[in-house]
Amino acid sequence: MKNLLVAQSGGPTAAINATLAGVFQGAVCSDRVDNIYGAVNGIQGVMEERFVDLRKLLGNTQDQELLSQTPAAALGSCRLKLKDPAKDPSDFEKIISIFRKHEIHYFIYIGGNDSMDTVDKLSAYVSAQGIDDIRVMGAPKTIDNDLMGTDHCPGFGSAAKYIATTFSELERDCHVYNVKAVTIVEVMGRNAGWLTAASSLARLNGGEGPALIYLCEVPFDPEKFLQDVQEQLKIWDSVLVAVSEGVHDAQGRYLSEQTQSGATDNFGHSYIAGAAGVLEQLVRDRIGCKVRSIELNLMQRSAAHIASATDIRESQMLGRKACQCALDGKSGRMAAIRRISDEPYRIELTDVPVSESANAEKTVPAEWITPDGHDVTPEMTAYLKPLIQGESPVTYKNGIPCHIRLY
Amino acid sequence: MKNLLVAQSGGPTAAINATLAGVFQGAVCSDRVDNIYGAVNGIQGVMEERFVDLRKLLGNTQDQELLSQTPAAALGSCRLKLKDPAKDPSDFEKIISIFRKHEIHYFIYIGGNDSMDTVDKLSAYVSAQGIDDIRVMGAPKTIDNDLMGTDHCPGFGSAAKYIATTFSELERDCHVYNVKAVTIVEVMGRNAGWLTAASSLARLNGGEGPALIYLCEVPFDPEKFLQDVQEQLKIWDSVLVAVSEGVHDAQGRYLSEQTQSGATDNFGHSYIAGAAGVLEQLVRDRIGCKVRSIELNLMQRSAAHIASATDIRESQMLGRKACQCALDGKSGRMAAIRRISDEPYRIELTDVPVSESANAEKTVPAEWITPDGHDVTPEMTAYLKPLIQGESPVTYKNGIPCHIRLY
Repeated sequence: MKNLLVAQSGGPTAAINATLAGVFQGAVCSDRVDNIYGAVNGIQGVMEERFVDLRKLLGNTQDQELLSQTPAAALGSCRLKLKDPAKDPSDFEKIISIFRKHEIHYFIYIGGNDSMDTVDKLSAYVSAQGIDDIRVMGAPKTIDNDLMGTDHCPGFGSAAKYIATTFSELERDCHVYNVKAVTIVEVMGRNAGWLTAASSLARLNGGEGPALIYLCEVPFDPEKFLQDVQEQLKIWDSVLVAVSEGVHDAQGRYLSEQTQSGATDNFGHSYIAGAAGVLEQLVRDRIGCKVRSIELNLMQRSAAHIASATDIRESQMLGRKACQCALDGKSGRMAAIRRISDEPYRIELTDVPVSESANAEKTVPAEWITPDGHDVTPEMTAYLKPLIQGESPVTYKNGIPCHIRLY
Repeated sequence: MKNLLVAQSGGPTAAINATLAGVFQGAVCSDRVDNIYGAVNGIQGVMEERFVDLRKLLGNTQDQELLSQTPAAALGSCRLKLKDPAKDPSDFEKIISIFRKHEIHYFIYIGGNDSMDTVDKLSAYVSAQGIDDIRVMGAPKTIDNDLMGTDHCPGFGSAAKYIATTFSELERDCHVYNVKAVTIVEVMGRNAGWLTAASSLARLNGGEGPALIYLCEVPFDPEKFLQDVQEQLKIWDSVLVAVSEGVHDAQGRYLSEQTQSGATDNFGHSYIAGAAGVLEQLVRDRIGCKVRSIELNLMQRSAAHIASATDIRESQMLGRKACQCALDGKSGRMAAIRRISDEPYRIELTDVPVSESANAEKTVPAEWITPDGHDVTPEMTAYLKPLIQGESPVTYKNGIPCHIRLY
């Protein structure tokens, strides 16, 4: 009996379940796999032996399609970081004993930087113990697009498509009144501005999109921001601004730390305002025009109803690739995408040592940001554009999209 | 020469342009109309003679389809309220002189309560002056669904579909971690809770949807809210809450006024927090679990990419109806929907005296709210469900929806 176990970890995305479907499809086609288990709540669920039988839950292709259009981690997630095996191998001993008990020979972990750390540590431990019949593979996902070793990350394209679409719709909305107004939209990304850069794609069909784009890679200066906005207000009635949640000054202090230290509520607690909220207040105080802040919040990672067909397809392929690597005897590696060309868009699947991705972050290169610091270059557009192409088919029932539940 | 003038007013919606397309289609088919003009920025644009030639801009059916899928008011909007003609008829004299100059015999105004006030005053003035060759008709729109005289309002169904879909996606997202967490989602609606009630539709396919729904029609008690949340946290890890932006206590004080009077920033200005932000802070202070607030903000009224096909179709029909009424010599009336049955869903188009809708607000009836004050009844679901049915076709180019610009 050779069983496969798959689990998901980190922040949810609109495409992480497509990768799960891909892993399942890879396993179910192979005669080298008997049972296909899913662990609920990631590595934590592995350690607690909370398994579901995916052959039963995903018995027909319709269920697999439904899984691919369901947002967020259908197997649940966790934020558990395993101990350093050199200092305390107990977590790893426990995991291996559970693998042995359930005859698990293939383990696929779908996740971001932290999850790849788990894959790295676990595969290294397995190898160091001289175990040669357990294979541990990683499959990437993160809307942040900050994983090293892969051209881009599953989940990012769908979030980018939501952001581009939403900015194009917001631009229309903000255009209707002929009074001076500023609309500041906060996009996810603490350390990498890829998602905020995707707001520029709202211009692809001739729309103006955001007038100003601030990525967290550029030190943020509130005075420069006010100048930029004033300049734009001379030209346009409505000024739409995209800003990364993680914008900070040259000293690394986040916006809310710079301007809000004195603000407390009736209970004496500090307010935790987002970047857009801080900038809204700044524009109100210093410019005095109509101003509104918007956070795209969880919608940008969960809006599966407008997933990118390219992203969903690639996410499934990476799941199958990670599974195939494990079946072929590979371990300690991550399935990845290598881009061959932007236009026509061509990629190939590959696999890279997971240690390349574990705990590292790929940020936006400086040369893809305009010298004025508030926009992106054509190279960035060429990179981003293929990732949002195509509309993934969605099954609706009763007027809302259908989702599947695995636990 | 008999020309028709159409304009849009009030807050944008995802369907107000479908009504504009309907008005145009009604006019372009008739040999009683010569030129078809659009006024830019509502009645303000009428008074400033800022007209566009819609026969040129919407020359082919593709452009009309593109218009129907473009969010926000393609002719722009305004918030201008005309003076009382009994006290100062100057606005009205000016409008009539402009109508005469451009040979406008039909004027269609698409908007909400305030816009219907304009239709009411202008048509009454025309009538009082003994003018019998100028017809003034209203076409309804508002995501708030608070117009009297019509079963429901164009724009509401699309916003409701966005809200139901988004809550179903957020529910999946919030479900992934097995830690106690509260997510509070603020929905538009100062005085009417229809949109917040639409969050309940996230349950239509078996999903849990929001655990608690607070409409602004029920006096809001923060202590009761905390009790409700505590009760839900005993049952579930993740508690999703829908709350109207306009929830207030029995004295009519909004939430932020109740709890935030002392909060100021570094400049000494008061914070203007939304209802969800106030409740987030309350849960953090008093319950102490993980908590997040989300505002659906402008996305709920501009997300044309997930418009309700029913809403778009009805919005077009109401535009044609308003146009036809004017051509048939009616004036001072609003095109409206009368519901015949919920299931099968059957409506008929009608027209009602615009005075019924002007400045009035239709709120959620008390009997459609559950006695515990934090949910809606099956009667509400039966009313809402037909309005979100069907997915309106959207043309994409370069991965984002195509929009049209009229000025």
